[in-house]
Amino acid sequence: MDLKNEISRRASSFNKELDTFLKINHPKNLYEASRHLPMAGGKRLRPVLTMLCCEAVGGTETDAIPFALAVEIIHNFTLVHDDIMDKSTLRRNLQTVHIKYSEPTAILAGDLLFVKAFEALETYSKDMIMFRKLNNHLIQSVIEVCEGQQLDMNFEHQKMIPESEYIDMIRKKTSALFRIASDGGALIGGASNNIIKALNSYGTSLGLAFQIRDDYLDMSSTASTLGKDIGNDIRNGKKTLIAVHALSHCKGKDKEILTRLFGKADASEKEVETVFNLFESCGSINYAAQKAEEYSTIAIHELKTLDNSKAKDILRELAMYTMTREK
Amino acid sequence: MDLKNEISRRASSFNKELDTFLKINHPKNLYEASRHLPMAGGKRLRPVLTMLCCEAVGGTETDAIPFALAVEIIHNFTLVHDDIMDKSTLRRNLQTVHIKYSEPTAILAGDLLFVKAFEALETYSKDMIMFRKLNNHLIQSVIEVCEGQQLDMNFEHQKMIPESEYIDMIRKKTSALFRIASDGGALIGGASNNIIKALNSYGTSLGLAFQIRDDYLDMSSTASTLGKDIGNDIRNGKKTLIAVHALSHCKGKDKEILTRLFGKADASEKEVETVFNLFESCGSINYAAQKAEEYSTIAIHELKTLDNSKAKDILRELAMYTMTREK
Repeated sequence: MDLKNEISRRASSFNKELDTFLKINHPKNLYEASRHLPMAGGKRLRPVLTMLCCEAVGGTETDAIPFALAVEIIHNFTLVHDDIMDKSTLRRNLQTVHIKYSEPTAILAGDLLFVKAFEALETYSKDMIMFRKLNNHLIQSVIEVCEGQQLDMNFEHQKMIPESEYIDMIRKKTSALFRIASDGGALIGGASNNIIKALNSYGTSLGLAFQIRDDYLDMSSTASTLGKDIGNDIRNGKKTLIAVHALSHCKGKDKEILTRLFGKADASEKEVETVFNLFESCGSINYAAQKAEEYSTIAIHELKTLDNSKAKDILRELAMYTMTREK
Repeated sequence: MDLKNEISRRASSFNKELDTFLKINHPKNLYEASRHLPMAGGKRLRPVLTMLCCEAVGGTETDAIPFALAVEIIHNFTLVHDDIMDKSTLRRNLQTVHIKYSEPTAILAGDLLFVKAFEALETYSKDMIMFRKLNNHLIQSVIEVCEGQQLDMNFEHQKMIPESEYIDMIRKKTSALFRIASDGGALIGGASNNIIKALNSYGTSLGLAFQIRDDYLDMSSTASTLGKDIGNDIRNGKKTLIAVHALSHCKGKDKEILTRLFGKADASEKEVETVFNLFESCGSINYAAQKAEEYSTIAIHELKTLDNSKAKDILRELAMYTMTREK
């Protein structure tokens, strides 16, 4: 089975629906700004998860579309607003929305995407009770995403973060949407409570693995070059799992140096490199790779409850890919 | 009947519900930021409208609460984000959220309020079909509010705006929430389609009257002092009904001066005063007062379809107050 093919086939059928749904209206500049990021591509992992989980329990791809749209549009709305908060200038190799269209329009474009997500779900009309459940899922996950983003920002001003608090933060900020993408799909497909619970846990663990592998890749892929973002993350005291681990595992003089340099706003290139080398020598970069693997393994384990199907195989492959991917 | 008493009694029973609903959670700074504006008071016109329209058709205040909460929270979310876009520093005599809590937290606090509005409606569980209608009302009105805000911003860069386009903009930006507050209340109270339609039109016209009276008050109350905001509005070329009217009704030399000075970013105090005086001499300030009166009269006219009730009397008084209020 070719994982890439299986995902991109579903992603491209999803993309058609997204393109139709996010049609341009008046005023044009607002609608164009709101389409800018969602139509710039992206892996579509969340909607594909919804489709796969729905298929894996006997439902159809088509039934999953309204909720898949809602989840992906929510994801894009959070990116548009996060990029303003983080002052990011590039995303998916394009200018971010606030750079291209101004900050006021980007705030509004995010708001518009936000409400369009709820509108997407409104097109789901098969079953009222199901609609209420999905609507509630969407609401609760957005609350978690907001809480997670604020926690992430708060962490930048705290010297030490216990690992459990870091995990709780990414469980909200990243995993919440993976979780509802998965168990929402199962719900739509008519799964039993048991299976819904298993796919809820699958989505949660996959989301954690995904985020931690991201933290790992950001650090490991720039080992030799120390790209700009790493420098910024180190200067801002950005708490990734790697930083969280290093801050609590470095000892003696290493710890002293780390405490002094990590989060130092005007750290020199040399100081940034010192922090990076400490992350490596404390074993924190490897630790993140291991943790991503652990969560992926949990995700795979949850799939055992499901009957065999092609979609189940793809979900398993997806979790394996998450712990080994290099980009 | 004492209009002020009737409104403030309902507003204070609404405020208790709002206070309970917007409870502080973790992380505290996000929740405090999201409560800052909604708990700072305000007239509560929209939720009171929902309660009154529900009562006027035979429903109860209590039934109206979930939707009233949703509408008022949406209103507050839009204010939090608008204040960022407009770089406003004060609202309801307090620092705006982005000034008090930082811009990133204000963006998130607005997002959190946004989703809490949908959560508030989730507590409405009487009737699934009704829920879907109300949910859809909420969605469509937020789309209009976003469009209206973008149009308002776009207008600043356009020299001339036809009055019809200005009215279309405030119909979206301001009236949309007055409209759903009114016909949503009627829907919840079990009104016939005829009555729902009448209260839809009542809410729309009341919203237009309210916004235009606001434009009028901003100008007339500062006739002698020319407060900072008026200066800014004139320098930014902010298209109020007054500006729209003046730009299309001033003739000859007046028009030439107005075209040159209105929207001139570095206009002097003297130039701002010149523009203000042209607004007055072209009759544009009076025109706005008249227009507010016209829309209030339409609103009152729509009430004739309703059976007599105390709530109906209050709705009539409210429309009369809207066209005469001095603050």
